[in-house]
Amino acid sequence: MTKGKLFGLSLGPGDPQLITRRAWDCLQRSDAVWTYPIRTKQHDSYALDIALRAGLSLPAQHQPLIFPMTHDVEKLARYWANAAQAVLNHLHQGRDVMFLVEGDASTYSTFTHLSRTVRALDEEIAIETVPGVTSFHAAAAHVQIPLADVDDTVAVIPAGYGIDMIDKLLREFDTLVLLKVKPLLDDILHLLQQRELLDSSYFVEKAGSPEERVVHDLAALRGQSVNYLSLIIVRSHHRERGEMVRGCKNKSTIASEP
Amino acid sequence: MTKGKLFGLSLGPGDPQLITRRAWDCLQRSDAVWTYPIRTKQHDSYALDIALRAGLSLPAQHQPLIFPMTHDVEKLARYWANAAQAVLNHLHQGRDVMFLVEGDASTYSTFTHLSRTVRALDEEIAIETVPGVTSFHAAAAHVQIPLADVDDTVAVIPAGYGIDMIDKLLREFDTLVLLKVKPLLDDILHLLQQRELLDSSYFVEKAGSPEERVVHDLAALRGQSVNYLSLIIVRSHHRERGEMVRGCKNKSTIASEP
Repeated sequence: MTKGKLFGLSLGPGDPQLITRRAWDCLQRSDAVWTYPIRTKQHDSYALDIALRAGLSLPAQHQPLIFPMTHDVEKLARYWANAAQAVLNHLHQGRDVMFLVEGDASTYSTFTHLSRTVRALDEEIAIETVPGVTSFHAAAAHVQIPLADVDDTVAVIPAGYGIDMIDKLLREFDTLVLLKVKPLLDDILHLLQQRELLDSSYFVEKAGSPEERVVHDLAALRGQSVNYLSLIIVRSHHRERGEMVRGCKNKSTIASEP
Repeated sequence: MTKGKLFGLSLGPGDPQLITRRAWDCLQRSDAVWTYPIRTKQHDSYALDIALRAGLSLPAQHQPLIFPMTHDVEKLARYWANAAQAVLNHLHQGRDVMFLVEGDASTYSTFTHLSRTVRALDEEIAIETVPGVTSFHAAAAHVQIPLADVDDTVAVIPAGYGIDMIDKLLREFDTLVLLKVKPLLDDILHLLQQRELLDSSYFVEKAGSPEERVVHDLAALRGQSVNYLSLIIVRSHHRERGEMVRGCKNKSTIASEP
């Protein structure tokens, strides 16, 4: 029997309209199994919700996979192995498996773990990753700012690395995308005010979802509690531009530069 | 007469299957005008080509807009103004205008200039940016590496900032995306070899297009001439992880940290 194929199906940040045609075609297949990540048995799946809001129905075969929110490496490894084994059971019976993920499957996604573990258990499994639109691309589009203008540099980090690192990156990059800003929000707002960057910063909660909230007057957020899925995009005017080697220069020119 | 609306229509990196449903719906409208960037009158439009390869036909109203490849600010400003005025002529006659862009309209895109100039000429114009899949997200999906794993940091830069900056960022970020690597390719390969990062680097030419070329054995690229649309993704194992403030920590814990 031919083994099934595993698909990492990016569904975009939440608006079903931001699903790609490729992912949409994959979702129409009634012969494939849908799997999707949940945090606990009690939680809904954000990824599945995108597909359901698109008007699709669960196919006959479907299975939630638990990826707990923990940094306990042993616990994680146990759950990843369980999830991979559940997927393999389907694949070994010749069924293709769609793993539904919000955003992009290569970007802060549980698909990285799942595909790695499936491959470790059976290296013959064919895997296709269908790329998608990320939350920060949707956020930049919504607030109509460039994520990157010509020659710009962009850094994307979880805000948890702290204020000193954020401050440093504001001097080094044109655009700084801060993910999961919730636990550090007031400190970040204080820093942005100090650096006179509040006006060129945008806060987006649950980007691309029906509950999306965009705040440009960031000072108004002080002391507020925000959703876990919150990001801030800062367009920094502090970055000093280094010397740029242009694409049109030939190699001899580059070699002779100091 | 109601003025038309301007759409920044991201078509993804080249594979027509990576167009979003929203952009796809917009492309079906026979009443809208298609505009698309070209470098010179003699050049084809890569963005238009994506739509045509998807099997779509040019609508009755369509117009190429010239965005020359130059860093001459005065020349650029003149062409941007011409392009914006051409778009405004349609908008002022009540026609919606689709501006077709490859990749994502907020990421290194001519739409940034076009929308800025249109707004400067007529601030009443409604603008919608439809986000899309970038070339580096498609590239990461194709080579099946995470662009960002849990807690990872990502930097995206045009390679032209030079070897010293690339070397620095390899120590500071988990993933480094280098765009437009062509003029510096041999120097980059030399650096990656010195840092023992060739094995965790991936070269992708024309990501997502029918001529896409992926090279994992980067040493084989030495001395080769590559396309202008070439990128390298480096997964760096050199980055020293700083202390991380977890999302589950409360503010008093953070405040008491050194």
